[in-house]
Amino acid sequence: MSIRIGIMGYGNLGRGVECAVRQNPDLELTAVFTRRDPSKVKILTQTAQVFKASEAIEKKDLIDVLIICGGSATDLPEMTPEYVKYFNVIDSFDTHKKIPEHFANVDSAAKESGHIGIISVGWDPGMFSLNRLYAASILPEGKDYTFWGKGVSQGHSDAIRRIEGVRDARQYTIPVDSSLEAVRRGEDPELTTRQKHTRECFVVAEDGADKAKIEKEIVTMPYYFDEYDTTVHFITQEELDRDHKGIPHGGFVIRSGKTGWNGENSHIIEYSLKLDSNPEFTSCVLAAYARAAYRLNKEGQTGARTVFDIAPAMLSPLSGEEIRARML
Amino acid sequence: MSIRIGIMGYGNLGRGVECAVRQNPDLELTAVFTRRDPSKVKILTQTAQVFKASEAIEKKDLIDVLIICGGSATDLPEMTPEYVKYFNVIDSFDTHKKIPEHFANVDSAAKESGHIGIISVGWDPGMFSLNRLYAASILPEGKDYTFWGKGVSQGHSDAIRRIEGVRDARQYTIPVDSSLEAVRRGEDPELTTRQKHTRECFVVAEDGADKAKIEKEIVTMPYYFDEYDTTVHFITQEELDRDHKGIPHGGFVIRSGKTGWNGENSHIIEYSLKLDSNPEFTSCVLAAYARAAYRLNKEGQTGARTVFDIAPAMLSPLSGEEIRARML
Repeated sequence: MSIRIGIMGYGNLGRGVECAVRQNPDLELTAVFTRRDPSKVKILTQTAQVFKASEAIEKKDLIDVLIICGGSATDLPEMTPEYVKYFNVIDSFDTHKKIPEHFANVDSAAKESGHIGIISVGWDPGMFSLNRLYAASILPEGKDYTFWGKGVSQGHSDAIRRIEGVRDARQYTIPVDSSLEAVRRGEDPELTTRQKHTRECFVVAEDGADKAKIEKEIVTMPYYFDEYDTTVHFITQEELDRDHKGIPHGGFVIRSGKTGWNGENSHIIEYSLKLDSNPEFTSCVLAAYARAAYRLNKEGQTGARTVFDIAPAMLSPLSGEEIRARML
Repeated sequence: MSIRIGIMGYGNLGRGVECAVRQNPDLELTAVFTRRDPSKVKILTQTAQVFKASEAIEKKDLIDVLIICGGSATDLPEMTPEYVKYFNVIDSFDTHKKIPEHFANVDSAAKESGHIGIISVGWDPGMFSLNRLYAASILPEGKDYTFWGKGVSQGHSDAIRRIEGVRDARQYTIPVDSSLEAVRRGEDPELTTRQKHTRECFVVAEDGADKAKIEKEIVTMPYYFDEYDTTVHFITQEELDRDHKGIPHGGFVIRSGKTGWNGENSHIIEYSLKLDSNPEFTSCVLAAYARAAYRLNKEGQTGARTVFDIAPAMLSPLSGEEIRARML
């Protein structure tokens, strides 16, 4: 009696979910939906079928939880409220400012149809959010810090690729070590954007392009780079492909707080991730929350949820007795 | 409409809870119960009353949640199942092996009386357990590590004080840096007890005591020290009182896991605590879970719970809308 998983969208994230499902013996991938021609999409799971995205609704009886692997800009705001009419769904919606609106849209559709929709699942939003909430609840008098990296920022890499004369590029976001250390020492520093992260860019220029001009355009680019100390390295396409193929990421959530009658004692809570593959790790979080979505809906619950609303025990394939005996 | 908190037992932990309650505007300390003579117990909160422990049951209408600040060896196994007959309760029961039995005892009494009893709340068991569960659920193929320290072990300090010729002592548990680093690099080492922690002892000897004999008794003490590399420093009582008065602690929970179709990508999830005061931090966790106990019981829930069963949102004084807008 496995939990039958469907994947909507077979890009980096969809492929990651496919791998994650295989690592969870109580989950089973039954269907992958794609906007491409299904006959041209090769998946790894021999027991699952590939369908057109437009066929999803008629295949709904094959699926207990649909994991929607779309982009936050245009896909998820449409897809999640639509598919939750027919499925229990999970997404990784990560436009922080639009979460309240997305939550409301998914909530009303989910309640009407009797499904569960867990939104904004991943690591930020997701595990980082959870750690911000736990730490703030435990240490009410304190200060929060989130550092990202070292990791690849897809948005910043894309921004560089749009510059004239750039053939390819990869941008790394890197936390500033000395600031991280000051936070860990409990100094509660006020940090500017520049003091928190640096940006390192690996750029392949077109033949004959003006590299000095490209570099200047990068480091002065408003919002993306101008508030940061940015380093630009020009390399060959071969070097980029050889050394910068991965999609690593990670980061740190730290809360520094005071306790005691007069705030005389200091405490540091730190959560960190070091990820070889950003999409594969996000996929693993999605898979664990798919288990929770199934269980909650089996209990008769409906509506939108976030990681804040899910009891940790819901994520584990083990029973309450087992986790109390082994992990508490 | 504050949540009215009672404290049973006014030692280090009880005093810590008193301070934690003050930091949470929606919590209010109404009563402290003590086995000592109440007229001789001075508390810090002017608006709360001190009663004999034996009067607790008759004062039950003053209290929404009773936080039981007793020892795990003999107090809590008796007190928590008894008091949950009359109160919603929280304890920090930390004898890992006896948790299933304690849970069962609290669960049946709590269900019968219509209360909530959250057991084993603190940081280990507690926040460390939560992080073991989250990490194992996200990365099913991986390896767990828990390191404790640097911090004071009360049990080990007590063991040294029982040696003939020892007047006072303080023992620190210290994680081995090179092992921590190997785990963080994803090397998945198999670590012996000796490779994980060292023990450092500060000992005040009686006048004329045989220090060489004391040192030998410490480092060869079965279970407590013989499996560790132990350092012994003889110091004066003045030095002990000046430099080793605090009760710091902390530690690291790390999971190293693989993802991808063939386990080709590695990930490290790390949670760490650096605490100036072990009992004050534990108290802060207790206070946050007291809020959850009150809310769960208001919803009509009864029975025993652990940190695994509590949705994170239950811990926060903020509403669902607020935490989604600010922390997700």
